Amino acid sequence: MPHAPRTIALLTDFGTRDPYVAVMKGVIASRTDAAIADLTHEIPAFDAFEAAWFLRTTAPWWPAGTIFVCVVDPGVGTSRRIVAAECGGRIYLAPDNGLLTFIECEKLFSVENESLFLPAGSSTFHGRDRFAPVAAALANGTAIEAVGPKIDPKSDVVRLDYAPPQYSHASAYGTIVSIDRFGNCVTDLEVARVSFSPMLLRIGTTMITRVERNYGDAESGPFVIVGSTGSIEISVKNASAAEVLHLRRGDRVEVIGS
Amino acid sequence: MPHAPRTIALLTDFGTRDPYVAVMKGVIASRTDAAIADLTHEIPAFDAFEAAWFLRTTAPWWPAGTIFVCVVDPGVGTSRRIVAAECGGRIYLAPDNGLLTFIECEKLFSVENESLFLPAGSSTFHGRDRFAPVAAALANGTAIEAVGPKIDPKSDVVRLDYAPPQYSHASAYGTIVSIDRFGNCVTDLEVARVSFSPMLLRIGTTMITRVERNYGDAESGPFVIVGSTGSIEISVKNASAAEVLHLRRGDRVEVIGS
Amino acid sequence: MPHAPRTIALLTDFGTRDPYVAVMKGVIASRTDAAIADLTHEIPAFDAFEAAWFLRTTAPWWPAGTIFVCVVDPGVGTSRRIVAAECGGRIYLAPDNGLLTFIECEKLFSVENESLFLPAGSSTFHGRDRFAPVAAALANGTAIEAVGPKIDPKSDVVRLDYAPPQYSHASAYGTIVSIDRFGNCVTDLEVARVSFSPMLLRIGTTMITRVERNYGDAESGPFVIVGSTGSIEISVKNASAAEVLHLRRGDRVEVIGS
Repeated sequence: MPHAPRTIALLTDFGTRDPYVAVMKGVIASRTDAAIADLTHEIPAFDAFEAAWFLRTTAPWWPAGTIFVCVVDPGVGTSRRIVAAECGGRIYLAPDNGLLTFIECEKLFSVENESLFLPAGSSTFHGRDRFAPVAAALANGTAIEAVGPKIDPKSDVVRLDYAPPQYSHASAYGTIVSIDRFGNCVTDLEVARVSFSPMLLRIGTTMITRVERNYGDAESGPFVIVGSTGSIEISVKNASAAEVLHLRRGDRVEVIGS
Repeated sequence: MPHAPRTIALLTDFGTRDPYVAVMKGVIASRTDAAIADLTHEIPAFDAFEAAWFLRTTAPWWPAGTIFVCVVDPGVGTSRRIVAAECGGRIYLAPDNGLLTFIECEKLFSVENESLFLPAGSSTFHGRDRFAPVAAALANGTAIEAVGPKIDPKSDVVRLDYAPPQYSHASAYGTIVSIDRFGNCVTDLEVARVSFSPMLLRIGTTMITRVERNYGDAESGPFVIVGSTGSIEISVKNASAAEVLHLRRGDRVEVIGS
Repeated sequence: MPHAPRTIALLTDFGTRDPYVAVMKGVIASRTDAAIADLTHEIPAFDAFEAAWFLRTTAPWWPAGTIFVCVVDPGVGTSRRIVAAECGGRIYLAPDNGLLTFIECEKLFSVENESLFLPAGSSTFHGRDRFAPVAAALANGTAIEAVGPKIDPKSDVVRLDYAPPQYSHASAYGTIVSIDRFGNCVTDLEVARVSFSPMLLRIGTTMITRVERNYGDAESGPFVIVGSTGSIEISVKNASAAEVLHLRRGDRVEVIGS
């Protein structure tokens, strides 16, 4: 059966100064004509949460058929599984360490079919020995069912410790889930689910009452803004909100109606 | 009408550790088969001059038909326009903040056709909501005239404050326009327009009289060299000229015949 | 004669914040439809050994026909040659400064055919003026023999100063050849050639006796592990072995059977 051309999109914590990514791309290019795209290789080392949230933010914008290869894998070579998920027509390959926490999987498989792996692989570089060749096989039309036994997305997969936001009629509680290079602090509070207005945001002992619509027109000092993902963000004009306000990922945030 | 395959070339200050570039690429890949190339994502945040000079240096080397998507955009969501320019068969999309200062446009348009944008876009991420889908449409054959009303390249577009170099029969005045990662200081003085010789270069109270043809054969200390773009550069053997000589972008330079 | 589509893979010390890589890609894209891949642009400036070892580690994983363009070139514009090598069906372009030290060449040529270069090239940016257009020509089917006169791989090419590892029945001597971003110290000792066991590794006055199979199950402290390339590596659990043990590239390592 013919299949549409696919893109293999890479998400790792390997950086690009070491040969790991270049080796993975070589293995892929040796096995398929699928395009290879870089999502990022700058995930902080072993930071599964950062990778999971990055994937949540980016994957929905890619077309159906995209194969996401996510290698942030402190447990490489241990008994941790590799999983393959299909959801929304997209395919995800990841170590079973919570990277797919924010992906709602329709189908989930344990990647165990050694005939898809490189022969004589290592216990230290599954990105090359398992992820890359399995991704290439999937891009070439291998059915996801062929990678290994089906597992239960509800119970059989590792999920990161994460408390979803809570919304009530007059307040909402959430978490800083990401801090970008400009120091903007992204929360998981979706503005579409916050009906009350105007808002006051409380984080620790800091209160922020100013809301801005964009960065350019903002006055100096801290403000709340609806970020590009539709979630509430904390920013400071021409400065890093994280530094100025001493904020860290994981900090709890409360938004209150007036 | 058939059209040749195009490349969409990206130039941003987003870095690659945040999800912004990966999201833009997803939107593009969802809408066109055009190849996506990275010019750079390492422009210092909001540095329109650096981006404009980078574009001037790189764009002429790309084939006709290339679509340059330039997102260094501190005014995102304000009343600043997005412009689309065509020149030399290449297309440029950029916020109207001076990014195209060094591009001689034959045709210029204000990008306002909302049917080309993502529906329900944000006021904080036009890279995803406007630049990416418009670029994809252009790559798929949409005429540049469809993006919005024509505007006058002479009067209707923001230009950065920049004094072009001045050449006379015995001297030339210019500016350091870029400092590369090796610390080489690139001026806007084109050697082809400097007829006199030999040369003495004065910058502040520093005089440089040595001229080298390449880095490898150079002796220690500061020297003048014709850089890869044909412009006069200031270098120091095995060191950063910017650090050793305390030079900064924007510094004025004088070249004098003997 | 038709030829298969090729990939041009780039390996430089240019970084991506300067325009050099974007210019090279533009020249290539102007001349060929071959895919362009980034191996890395983060080789430390002028570090030929790092580049040569990177190439050794990555190139074998890429398909036959790949054209590797290696521009770590402190001698650009001097009398140093550019060489083109063919080996294992892959093609390598590099300055003749030792970058190909670890590539076993079957055919080697001096790149001198100026008709393949950009006209009016510079003496400071051969990446653009020579490497890029020659790579594009090769990708388009130009025979490697056309780049210039054949030279002798045994005698006519610069090789880096490097002492290969020595293996005996009870011990092996090698060198740290690479330190990755995690601080893992990669040696050139191939575990397949070390028959004795168990092992003790000595580096300076440090002894390491613990051997681990993967990083995740490792206990705290230094250990020896077989890295992804099949060579012996020195690691420290959740820390940089290079920092903790004060190791540097070039340090000599001894492995001893018990």
